[in-house]
Amino acid sequence: MLSVPELIRKKRDGGQLSDDEIKTFIRAISDGSIQDAQTGAMLMAIWQKDMVPREIQTLTREMMSSGEVMSWPPEWRGRMVDKHSTGGVGDKVSLVLAPALAACGCKVPMISGRGLVHTGGTLDKLESIPGFNIRQSAEKIRDILESVGCCIVGQTEMLVPADRVLYALRDATSTVDSLPLIAGSIISKKGAESLSALVLDVKFGRAALYKDLEGAKELAQLLVETGNGLGIRTSAVLSRMDATIGRLVGNSLEVIESLETLKGNGPEDLMELVKTLGGVLLLMAGLASNLSEGKKCISDVVIGGAALSKFQAMMEAQGVANEAARSLCSAHTDYFKVLRKSEHQLELEAPADGVVVDVDGLVLAQVLHKLGAGRSKAGEPVNHSVGAELLVSLGQRVKKGAPWLRLHYEDPTPTPDQINQLQNALTVNDGTQTHHEHTLVQELLLPN
Amino acid sequence: MLSVPELIRKKRDGGQLSDDEIKTFIRAISDGSIQDAQTGAMLMAIWQKDMVPREIQTLTREMMSSGEVMSWPPEWRGRMVDKHSTGGVGDKVSLVLAPALAACGCKVPMISGRGLVHTGGTLDKLESIPGFNIRQSAEKIRDILESVGCCIVGQTEMLVPADRVLYALRDATSTVDSLPLIAGSIISKKGAESLSALVLDVKFGRAALYKDLEGAKELAQLLVETGNGLGIRTSAVLSRMDATIGRLVGNSLEVIESLETLKGNGPEDLMELVKTLGGVLLLMAGLASNLSEGKKCISDVVIGGAALSKFQAMMEAQGVANEAARSLCSAHTDYFKVLRKSEHQLELEAPADGVVVDVDGLVLAQVLHKLGAGRSKAGEPVNHSVGAELLVSLGQRVKKGAPWLRLHYEDPTPTPDQINQLQNALTVNDGTQTHHEHTLVQELLLPN
Repeated sequence: MLSVPELIRKKRDGGQLSDDEIKTFIRAISDGSIQDAQTGAMLMAIWQKDMVPREIQTLTREMMSSGEVMSWPPEWRGRMVDKHSTGGVGDKVSLVLAPALAACGCKVPMISGRGLVHTGGTLDKLESIPGFNIRQSAEKIRDILESVGCCIVGQTEMLVPADRVLYALRDATSTVDSLPLIAGSIISKKGAESLSALVLDVKFGRAALYKDLEGAKELAQLLVETGNGLGIRTSAVLSRMDATIGRLVGNSLEVIESLETLKGNGPEDLMELVKTLGGVLLLMAGLASNLSEGKKCISDVVIGGAALSKFQAMMEAQGVANEAARSLCSAHTDYFKVLRKSEHQLELEAPADGVVVDVDGLVLAQVLHKLGAGRSKAGEPVNHSVGAELLVSLGQRVKKGAPWLRLHYEDPTPTPDQINQLQNALTVNDGTQTHHEHTLVQELLLPN
Repeated sequence: MLSVPELIRKKRDGGQLSDDEIKTFIRAISDGSIQDAQTGAMLMAIWQKDMVPREIQTLTREMMSSGEVMSWPPEWRGRMVDKHSTGGVGDKVSLVLAPALAACGCKVPMISGRGLVHTGGTLDKLESIPGFNIRQSAEKIRDILESVGCCIVGQTEMLVPADRVLYALRDATSTVDSLPLIAGSIISKKGAESLSALVLDVKFGRAALYKDLEGAKELAQLLVETGNGLGIRTSAVLSRMDATIGRLVGNSLEVIESLETLKGNGPEDLMELVKTLGGVLLLMAGLASNLSEGKKCISDVVIGGAALSKFQAMMEAQGVANEAARSLCSAHTDYFKVLRKSEHQLELEAPADGVVVDVDGLVLAQVLHKLGAGRSKAGEPVNHSVGAELLVSLGQRVKKGAPWLRLHYEDPTPTPDQINQLQNALTVNDGTQTHHEHTLVQELLLPN
């Protein structure tokens, strides 16, 4: 058996680590016998020399096995589903998708994350609802899945401890963007959920990790392969991320847009993404015989209100007072009776007559991040009320002086430079140029 | 100013770090603000992407400046000299060279190391002399240089603290064999000695870090360049390391051979190396007008006994009892009155009539290491009495059954397999084949 320095040396020199060698590395992380400097060196060696698919598969499996692996009643077999997204601006898909899938008969043990830098986190969004508790024990998760069908929770201490160590060090060591490490981290956590089917929403574009389709597709293919290797039916959706998903960005504002969507008033792009991701999962779980049947099922439970009921039940099961949950889910409610509204709002005006051809989602996210909507370091608090409402759509004709963005802020106040950046995120022209392509779903990678 | 993760990212991607960026990295090590995982990742990134000469120069200078830099009386200017060797089997050069240089009028503040794996350490050798104290304060070092002219001591806490951190982590992270890190470590320590001249003994061959001349020469050129860049006149000697230097290997046995050499009875190869390294230093220090004059000066002080007197004075100044030092330095003394002799000796016999054409120094060193002559991890004790006496020379005719090696051992006892390995280290043939080339000094890199 090779020692840890010998393992590092082998990967450093571009060798392939055997299954036993990868097990030794992950064990050493789990039992704390490896030195942090050695973990840092190994992460950098993996970044530099990559891993072949067999190594990635083993890495993922060993990471998964480093902690508890959830188990479910046998009668749920085939219906355990989840989604993972590589992160986008205004991405509130999980809040709509989880209850919709539950309404279609799935069990959705969604373990989600917090936001970092410019991408929002599902847990932060949910925590803007007073009382919503993302920390639930394995037993409680099973109870909620039994009674409601879906829950959205944070990672527990017992789940994939090796990933917690590696994830924390990857940021500090500049080894985040390594395909084997990304795949290991994402899929090991999904593996520990003992899923039947998993769909990955892999983003590309201006506001995504990958700027172009090719890079995103390479990651998507690897994730699909790695998930299937763990015995989970895995598919991927490649979706564009240039502007924002929907029109509202910011934690509590995104809860509002999710609720509006569950009430049937959602933006088209968000609904399309939810239907596609949900349809693929229903297809893989055998609850739909083709993709369009799956999409229709998702659409039906949203339009019919069944998904909204599931969301309400999930909120109540996860600690939200019944009255608040009911209020949020009523038609024509004032959301700000329950959710906190920012102290200040500011409307930005269109600089000229013309057609909206572009809104730069990355710029929006970056400014909101600086105003407190996101965090720069794990553990920092966020201000749930900070955000922005897009008041126009792409392709829409606007008049000079018409409001196009409503900024919600508190402390800090936006600087003139930040206002300027936001203003420049909008591109209006005389209409001769067509607006920026906004086909959200670009390609599907389905299991054959 | 870039953050540490940004610095790692830049080197990770093959970029050149600016002087300020290297300073930031070394400062973060010295003040403890860097995480060990980050140091490990940076070491691996440097291993993978290398550094240009300007980066290596800055790295070395910043490492040197991370701690105390020694200062010397102005009247010693030009005469502060030292030697560094990349490590060999039976390499006792420092024990002869330091007093010889002092006898020629140099000041030699030799800061030496301990042995690791199969290479012996000068400090371990000296510590086999009862009372020899390698821990001396900066003030005491200056006093000894004033009164004796040479001392051989260990690195103090105050000297090059950044190197202590990096050196310890390089072994654990498999980043030892990186040219920039080797050069930074060696030259920063010599820089902190505020030398006038430095000679590097860079070994190549079977028992050396580099197996061939080319690799050793690349390192030698880099070290010479880096040393000169710090304002130290620096040269290198490329010397072959296939067999052993001299005939005795092991800590106390090497002290005996050094003393015999200082009494004029040394083996030819050791004397040749001492004369060359010393001659180069005397030339660079302006104490000789050409190399042969320098070599002659070294030879004269050895033959005439002046170097032996310096060694005796150095032992006394570093804590050895006067009587013991005098006894060791007398003619026809019994060294084992002062040094501890191993409890057991075993003589191996030549397997056939013939001519000795090869003795594999690496095998000898590896077996002795396992018998306790060396350590596998920093901090482990060594058994000073363990070693071996080579009883034959290359090219010598031997009879079957004649003793060729006397092994000194205690606990553990050598296994039959180890005895077999030792026996196979000897190659005897019928004399038709010429013996292994043993020209020790292969090439000189002198400043122009």
